[in-house]
Amino acid sequence: MSTETPTALQPEMPVTRWGDPAHASDLPAGVRDLVGMVFGLRDTPARDDVALPASRLSDDQLSSLQALLGQDHVVTDDTHRRQRTRGKSTPDLLRQRTGDLGDAPDVVVRPGDHDEVAALLAWAVEHRVAVVPFGGGTAVTGGLVADPASSGLSGVVSLDLGRMRRLLAIDPVSSTATLEPGLRGPEAEALLAGHGLMLGHFPQSFEFASIGGFAATRSSGQSSAGYGRFDSMVVALRVATPAGEVRLGASPANASGPDLREVFLGSEGAFGVITEVTVRVRPLPEVKEYEGWRWESFAAGADAMRTLAQSDLLPTVLRLSDENETAINLADPEAIGGEGAAGCLMIVGYEGTPDAVAAKRAAVTQALTGLGGRPQGSGPGQAWAEGRFHAPYLRDSLLDVGVLVETLETVTFWSNRQNLYDRVRKALQDELGEDAMILCHVSHVYATGCSLYFTVAAPGGDDPLAKWLPAKAAACEAIVAAGASITHHHAVGTDHRPYLTAEIGEVGAEVLRAIKRAVDPVGVLNPGVLIP
Amino acid sequence: MSTETPTALQPEMPVTRWGDPAHASDLPAGVRDLVGMVFGLRDTPARDDVALPASRLSDDQLSSLQALLGQDHVVTDDTHRRQRTRGKSTPDLLRQRTGDLGDAPDVVVRPGDHDEVAALLAWAVEHRVAVVPFGGGTAVTGGLVADPASSGLSGVVSLDLGRMRRLLAIDPVSSTATLEPGLRGPEAEALLAGHGLMLGHFPQSFEFASIGGFAATRSSGQSSAGYGRFDSMVVALRVATPAGEVRLGASPANASGPDLREVFLGSEGAFGVITEVTVRVRPLPEVKEYEGWRWESFAAGADAMRTLAQSDLLPTVLRLSDENETAINLADPEAIGGEGAAGCLMIVGYEGTPDAVAAKRAAVTQALTGLGGRPQGSGPGQAWAEGRFHAPYLRDSLLDVGVLVETLETVTFWSNRQNLYDRVRKALQDELGEDAMILCHVSHVYATGCSLYFTVAAPGGDDPLAKWLPAKAAACEAIVAAGASITHHHAVGTDHRPYLTAEIGEVGAEVLRAIKRAVDPVGVLNPGVLIP
Repeated sequence: MSTETPTALQPEMPVTRWGDPAHASDLPAGVRDLVGMVFGLRDTPARDDVALPASRLSDDQLSSLQALLGQDHVVTDDTHRRQRTRGKSTPDLLRQRTGDLGDAPDVVVRPGDHDEVAALLAWAVEHRVAVVPFGGGTAVTGGLVADPASSGLSGVVSLDLGRMRRLLAIDPVSSTATLEPGLRGPEAEALLAGHGLMLGHFPQSFEFASIGGFAATRSSGQSSAGYGRFDSMVVALRVATPAGEVRLGASPANASGPDLREVFLGSEGAFGVITEVTVRVRPLPEVKEYEGWRWESFAAGADAMRTLAQSDLLPTVLRLSDENETAINLADPEAIGGEGAAGCLMIVGYEGTPDAVAAKRAAVTQALTGLGGRPQGSGPGQAWAEGRFHAPYLRDSLLDVGVLVETLETVTFWSNRQNLYDRVRKALQDELGEDAMILCHVSHVYATGCSLYFTVAAPGGDDPLAKWLPAKAAACEAIVAAGASITHHHAVGTDHRPYLTAEIGEVGAEVLRAIKRAVDPVGVLNPGVLIP
Repeated sequence: MSTETPTALQPEMPVTRWGDPAHASDLPAGVRDLVGMVFGLRDTPARDDVALPASRLSDDQLSSLQALLGQDHVVTDDTHRRQRTRGKSTPDLLRQRTGDLGDAPDVVVRPGDHDEVAALLAWAVEHRVAVVPFGGGTAVTGGLVADPASSGLSGVVSLDLGRMRRLLAIDPVSSTATLEPGLRGPEAEALLAGHGLMLGHFPQSFEFASIGGFAATRSSGQSSAGYGRFDSMVVALRVATPAGEVRLGASPANASGPDLREVFLGSEGAFGVITEVTVRVRPLPEVKEYEGWRWESFAAGADAMRTLAQSDLLPTVLRLSDENETAINLADPEAIGGEGAAGCLMIVGYEGTPDAVAAKRAAVTQALTGLGGRPQGSGPGQAWAEGRFHAPYLRDSLLDVGVLVETLETVTFWSNRQNLYDRVRKALQDELGEDAMILCHVSHVYATGCSLYFTVAAPGGDDPLAKWLPAKAAACEAIVAAGASITHHHAVGTDHRPYLTAEIGEVGAEVLRAIKRAVDPVGVLNPGVLIP
């Protein structure tokens, strides 16, 4: 088949805020009143008048890049370099809001295909310059902050994958599609929808995050109960490395030794640049139904989730807010029919054919009712579905009025859920003080365990970054002490790198370093990211 | 909890045959008549009078091993060394039947726990001796045939895991169990059944194969449609390597970089010795129902399997024989109610609670009926269930009368199924001649593809090994040419090693070598196995 590209491109994100500026909104009056009452309001505008550091690349280097990729695809203007500075974590935004653009790349290049990526890597090796793959720019753990000096390199190229956004192939018999890495979530889904198909990967970053980023970070989306994590959807990969091309995925699963797909999935740009991703696709669902359920406690709701997962009876969407998150999210009592905000709200969603949805819904409803859940109808479900990608916009509005807002997440086995929850909550509360709000939800479940996703809000004070970093460190140490994973779906980046060895051990860390030496002996790929 | 060990130990297998000698049976009269008619009978008894090569280890080396592990656990007698010579592929058996014991280990050692395994590895590095981990001895791709000379080593230790057969822990909340590697299939299931639990992994080698072997080779069982491949059941691993201990699996799934569990799963003893495996377990099924379905053709049946898999509507067991295999297996017309052996037989099995089985069966029955399948009742299902572990015994009986019998398997995406089937069949038929019988079944399905499992029977002639090896090579080359995986669940071993680079590429092969250097710099672990 001929390849297809998106008809409409997604907008660029500003350097100090999330998302499409056209979708930004003022802080809702109710939230503003609440914040003013609890934390106080403090006008904290972002600076956007700070000059970028000068590019460290020489004119000769830029000329050789232009010869390689074409003049139009080697970009050194301020706007592009700003937009590719760091990602969208709160620390990233706080640094950028104060005018710190110290991690800006020296140049932005836009290769058009695998071969141009490979040529760019060879150039980087020759010139001893770091390469930072850039998809949607939605990284929240410092994955776009390369440290060229750590590898003895002299500059940073932002390898923008924005020209590589083609649907390369659909195999309708095998139910797979091959996508280029620069396709953002909505673009990929729109191309697939033209064939009646769907990927079904909807993380909160969906509107901007890219296919390559999903693969490189082992992303997990809001429909993972039904459709699985992104890495579980991937059947084949093509990767450009300084050591040569890698093509993996001769079959869905096999016994041909270690599964090397699982080495490049989650490699965060440190082992190569993912240039093609072949994923399982599904028919577009005919029916989508989302509804709310109420539980007496977080523990009761989590136990119900566990029962569903261990009975192989998962709906498409399954999420559970703890008591604090339920109270905050439902502060408007109209949203849940006047029942108030007691207990814990669960969102349960079903997608598929009418028959499959009806059968699954009947079985899940019977199970949840038997476990003590009380159905809340479609109102909370619709409210969740409408706001599912909105939280990062709200964060910007809160940062504007001086509120420190950030999220972090982890994952463990079911028997360790309460211990992990207690430890992380305590670490955050102890560091941020009693006035900090700490909310949590279970965003993803497995037969053997679940994720915990925390949201923190606290008065930012004079230096919100200085306030947050020790709290983040304390939370990470609590996660390590609980024996959980340092990240469920946000990835390692630079922020979690100090904690990775505790999780995979010294030998595991040496395995990562050995692979790095094999595929990137000079160390040009994302230096300082991931590898302990 | 305290640890538990099996009450009854499995017997040892003889060196020239499969399985428990008490379960061996003469060739059924009907099969004998058929073979006599088609191939001719040729009495081909196994020799068991050939002397072993002398041990290459010195008395000092043996003494130091005894000091390390205890005198009782360092075994040099003929019987034990014979029993740990090679595995149970037809080439292995043919070599052993002619008295070729050239690959016998020099000593058999039986460490009792992880620390003793680690100490043994340190000893091997110091003495420059190869270590071959030995679980159930069921390898069929040369995974137990180390080549010490290739690493400049002076002998071979068979690291028998038979003393490490404890159930170490059960986590009923997370639904996991931690097992030692030496536990064989029935032993592990019996220990779990004592807690009302099940692993649900039933490969044809089930009666003898071990937990460690399942993990080290990415085994896949006959109930994989419902319970998944063995690697998909594993949530945590403990591995002893010459570079130190590896513990992986802080959570069910995460974004903490590459999934290193997937590096040690399928590592076939070349990266370390797996000393603990934590797996997802399930409640014992209350109901087991197996039934037959008939299809007009292999393609029609395979398309029906594909529809089930892509609709997330898989039963617990799902297998489909091609026309030849259906005709041979159902040569006794009574077995299928007199309908003859036309078309293709599918086995469909359901296990679980009565409600879940009834619901799944209703949905699958509706789907299969709509796709043109004709139900055959429980007769073929029961016949399959009763004979599901019997084929290797039958192979011995056929080798006794001069018939060459062997199996091989592969896996590909659905759109490549027919091409792969045609190529492998043609390669085997061309090499083995028109009188060879070539049977095939689909043993495992995925949403995006399926395995193909071939069984070959042909007159063995004067030198059945010399007849088989070119046919196996031709089949492997056909698999590579079709772009499929060289093995779906038999592993790489030494037999498939020459074809691995074609599947994972030169960079992939270098990644494997880099990991090997990191964890086993001297190369004592299974030299010659897996790593290209």
